[in-house]
Amino acid sequence: MENSKKIQNIGFIGSGKVATNMATALYKQGFSISQIYSPTNKHAQILAEKVGAESILSISDFQKSLDLIIISISDSAVSQLDFSNIEKSILVCHTSGSLNMNVLNSQTNYGVFYPLQTFSNQRIINLTNIPICIEANDRNNLKKLLELGKSISNNVSEIDSQKRSILHLAAVFVCNFTNAMYAIGEEILEEANIDFDLLRPLIEETAHKVAHHSPKKVQTGPALRNDTLIMDKHINNLKDNKDFKEIYKLMSTIIHKENNVK
Amino acid sequence: MENSKKIQNIGFIGSGKVATNMATALYKQGFSISQIYSPTNKHAQILAEKVGAESILSISDFQKSLDLIIISISDSAVSQLDFSNIEKSILVCHTSGSLNMNVLNSQTNYGVFYPLQTFSNQRIINLTNIPICIEANDRNNLKKLLELGKSISNNVSEIDSQKRSILHLAAVFVCNFTNAMYAIGEEILEEANIDFDLLRPLIEETAHKVAHHSPKKVQTGPALRNDTLIMDKHINNLKDNKDFKEIYKLMSTIIHKENNVK
Repeated sequence: MENSKKIQNIGFIGSGKVATNMATALYKQGFSISQIYSPTNKHAQILAEKVGAESILSISDFQKSLDLIIISISDSAVSQLDFSNIEKSILVCHTSGSLNMNVLNSQTNYGVFYPLQTFSNQRIINLTNIPICIEANDRNNLKKLLELGKSISNNVSEIDSQKRSILHLAAVFVCNFTNAMYAIGEEILEEANIDFDLLRPLIEETAHKVAHHSPKKVQTGPALRNDTLIMDKHINNLKDNKDFKEIYKLMSTIIHKENNVK
Repeated sequence: MENSKKIQNIGFIGSGKVATNMATALYKQGFSISQIYSPTNKHAQILAEKVGAESILSISDFQKSLDLIIISISDSAVSQLDFSNIEKSILVCHTSGSLNMNVLNSQTNYGVFYPLQTFSNQRIINLTNIPICIEANDRNNLKKLLELGKSISNNVSEIDSQKRSILHLAAVFVCNFTNAMYAIGEEILEEANIDFDLLRPLIEETAHKVAHHSPKKVQTGPALRNDTLIMDKHINNLKDNKDFKEIYKLMSTIIHKENNVK
């Protein structure tokens, strides 16, 4: 039977970075965050206190009257959840970039609510411009989750599991690997006793440039120009750090290829 | 003999991205950009018109009365310049991150004026917060170049050739290689017909995070958690793109090592 009641009472499984940012945003928009479960109850308590919720010790403690349970735990932990303890008709969604929606198909109503962003414990961010990718098992649940997304973001769209996993893959490159590049820059400077602050304006502008341009069109540097003189010098300066040398060579090859073939 | 006259009349060798951004900033601060030489005279003319300068056809046409000549051309082109055509006493500096100051030592007065930033033809940027790294052959020239730097930026410091080359190396990682990561993200989405706009808020936040934190401390993602399930899926999704697969594996290894050893 179709339940057209709007989402109001929400439970969370998980209390990490994603859950904390999402619960906070939804709470601020007037949703009632009723219950929070986490394998580590202390973590559930900390988040529960922030959003006026109750922390529970087992997922069998979820009220039958909840409109939605949002699961924000690691992919492998989702697969291990025992849904027999959850009321079959409650709409349940996960927030994972790479997990197929169908892992939740033991429920009658299920979907995905994936915020495409990197979250920190250090800062609660404004979700207004964050893309939220929605998927659901039927039109009614899709409508509910789209509406929920639109209450916290202007950038909500329906994306299927296949496309979502491609987005997640691309996100690893532009976020995790990019941050690793920042960390390598920091390490290189540390060894020479140079302040990382000197690189911060460059990091900012590099990101800023692609806000309106295609990355391929704004590439700069020795690899683009195939300036082997500078590149050899740089590789020498990396001394005996094999990983950094290999990254340097591989990235330079990719930059050179991409900009000369296409 | 020491010439303590402040810098006022400036000539440029080069009219590319760096020269254009620097000449524009200096011009706006009231310096007189007198003459511009470029191997391609048409390019010199375009910049000359923007900053009220004269474009010249040969570096032997530089006026003897210039206070400074800024060289902004490729490293290899700097080494090929014939300085016998330039008045010996004119202060000459280059803007390269990796070229030793001493390549200019056929002059009596020389130095380095290196803006640590990525420049585009598409946008003239505000240099106020851009680090400018200064080096000079003596205290007098150092003072002059520091002063010149401070007229366009609040972030000017004395950095020797060795430290500058380390900075330049780190800059390649946080700027060129980071932009290449953006380009890979774009390419992955293109192939699946997904709009790159979806990644832009993530790129912005990833850069924003390290404005106040150490990159190592804000790393996220499957490699950090050593989530081999997701990583294997991602590598499969990269299909037959060998370069991207290799980058994916190498960056994941580095992220995992960095965050577990240190």
